[in-house]
Amino acid sequence: MSRKPPAARSDFKAWRNMTTRWADNDAYGHVNNTVYYEWFDSAVNAWLIEQGMLEIESGDPIALVVETRCTYAASLAFPQSIDIGLAVAELGRSSIRYRIGIFGEGADDAAAEGEFVHVVVDRATRRPVDIPADWRAKLGAIS
Amino acid sequence: MSRKPPAARSDFKAWRNMTTRWADNDAYGHVNNTVYYEWFDSAVNAWLIEQGMLEIESGDPIALVVETRCTYAASLAFPQSIDIGLAVAELGRSSIRYRIGIFGEGADDAAAEGEFVHVVVDRATRRPVDIPADWRAKLGAIS
Amino acid sequence: MSRKPPAARSDFKAWRNMTTRWADNDAYGHVNNTVYYEWFDSAVNAWLIEQGMLEIESGDPIALVVETRCTYAASLAFPQSIDIGLAVAELGRSSIRYRIGIFGEGADDAAAEGEFVHVVVDRATRRPVDIPADWRAKLGAIS
Amino acid sequence: MSRKPPAARSDFKAWRNMTTRWADNDAYGHVNNTVYYEWFDSAVNAWLIEQGMLEIESGDPIALVVETRCTYAASLAFPQSIDIGLAVAELGRSSIRYRIGIFGEGADDAAAEGEFVHVVVDRATRRPVDIPADWRAKLGAIS
Repeated sequence: MSRKPPAARSDFKAWRNMTTRWADNDAYGHVNNTVYYEWFDSAVNAWLIEQGMLEIESGDPIALVVETRCTYAASLAFPQSIDIGLAVAELGRSSIRYRIGIFGEGADDAAAEGEFVHVVVDRATRRPVDIPADWRAKLGAIS
Repeated sequence: MSRKPPAARSDFKAWRNMTTRWADNDAYGHVNNTVYYEWFDSAVNAWLIEQGMLEIESGDPIALVVETRCTYAASLAFPQSIDIGLAVAELGRSSIRYRIGIFGEGADDAAAEGEFVHVVVDRATRRPVDIPADWRAKLGAIS
Repeated sequence: MSRKPPAARSDFKAWRNMTTRWADNDAYGHVNNTVYYEWFDSAVNAWLIEQGMLEIESGDPIALVVETRCTYAASLAFPQSIDIGLAVAELGRSSIRYRIGIFGEGADDAAAEGEFVHVVVDRATRRPVDIPADWRAKLGAIS
Repeated sequence: MSRKPPAARSDFKAWRNMTTRWADNDAYGHVNNTVYYEWFDSAVNAWLIEQGMLEIESGDPIALVVETRCTYAASLAFPQSIDIGLAVAELGRSSIRYRIGIFGEGADDAAAEGEFVHVVVDRATRRPVDIPADWRAKLGAIS
């Protein structure tokens, strides 16, 4: 579908290795398309947590997903592990657009590429708030 | 493995119909064994919510899972729907043991049978509490 | 993020009702963003199967997912049921772009909207093939 | 519920580290009970594949799940990683009963313990066959 060359590892700034599961393979014998989004969500939120920005249980603000997309270039299958590359593509007043690449462990070309958009909201009201200054600095470092 | 005859519909007291999903089928072309537990959890909790016993966001007490088991007698596959039968097998001071049967829509014999044990706990401390009287009455009605 | 009004039920041509599961709700208490893609995949493939076009185990051709996207406008939560609306947005030589709307049962406005792109491939070689004439006729009927 | 002390790491013979996912945490903020079974399935099948016993796409025999159970002693939560311990508890003519322990990374006591029973079957007929001699030797080594 896409004529663009696949993303390379150098297109991403932060990395996370994740394991596949038996149940990820669907009836066609490869990781189902929905699982890639579980990886997106996990890589972004784990990075936010490790950077001290997000605290799931009681932190404020939190980040909600408003848009996601993925294009699939090559198949993956359990039991292989995958590397997830992350970069910030765009920072708005309240929104963060991440670029994400999914690579088979050791592969040079991305098996899939996508975007994942967070809106930063007040935990209680779930209304958008300005991205805090410390978040903005850390997100800027992987832009 | 089991020489017992499969459970019949008459062994259960409360029912819920659920849909399968494409991703439920695994590499062998049938619903993966883990999905049955998603149905167990869903049938039990939906019944508790509909009976006015459980309120997910702020109700107190809540019920936590301490033990589950399932035996698989026949395979199921997307896109078929399934019927989940529920009954209370045992009521302790704080614990509820449910029996569950998974039936292909319209089938007489269970494709799988299992148990699911809840402990009723205080939402904040997550320590066991006595099952409230109104819970006990409603649970008794499906024993 | 999106200023467009949400999709209405009249924007879709084929429908499927699906159930939510307890495990669909994530730590923020609403259906996780990845689950919407399980619904997309299920609605599209169930429709293909019911129309006699796709046969999972041995049919030829099959359809592989090459691109998906979703925008989220309102949250959903177990135990509610959802209605999935489906329409064909674009038919290429080998590719099918579906528009999909996710509606809370009874809601007028879509809680989420997305696209899902299939490429029709030979089962064995997994290389694109022309969309068969009978597929094209049936897909045209929900364009 | 259980008065037994939790399993220790020394109770298991083969190990696998797996990652948690954001979507694993349910509305109560901990890994949902069904996810443990995804880990069981993954640890057992990955071990069978790495030992050269199982080949998902075309190998013969294959192993189907006929019974699973789990008791939960402590909660786990994304983004922590987990260690899965595996041992063979019982070898029948066609069946393999595995004991499994789920440990938070670095924890001494199991957060959950379970059993997982495979029946070895002919790929085409899905009827039980005798466990092959090379399987039996390798399974014996982790008994």
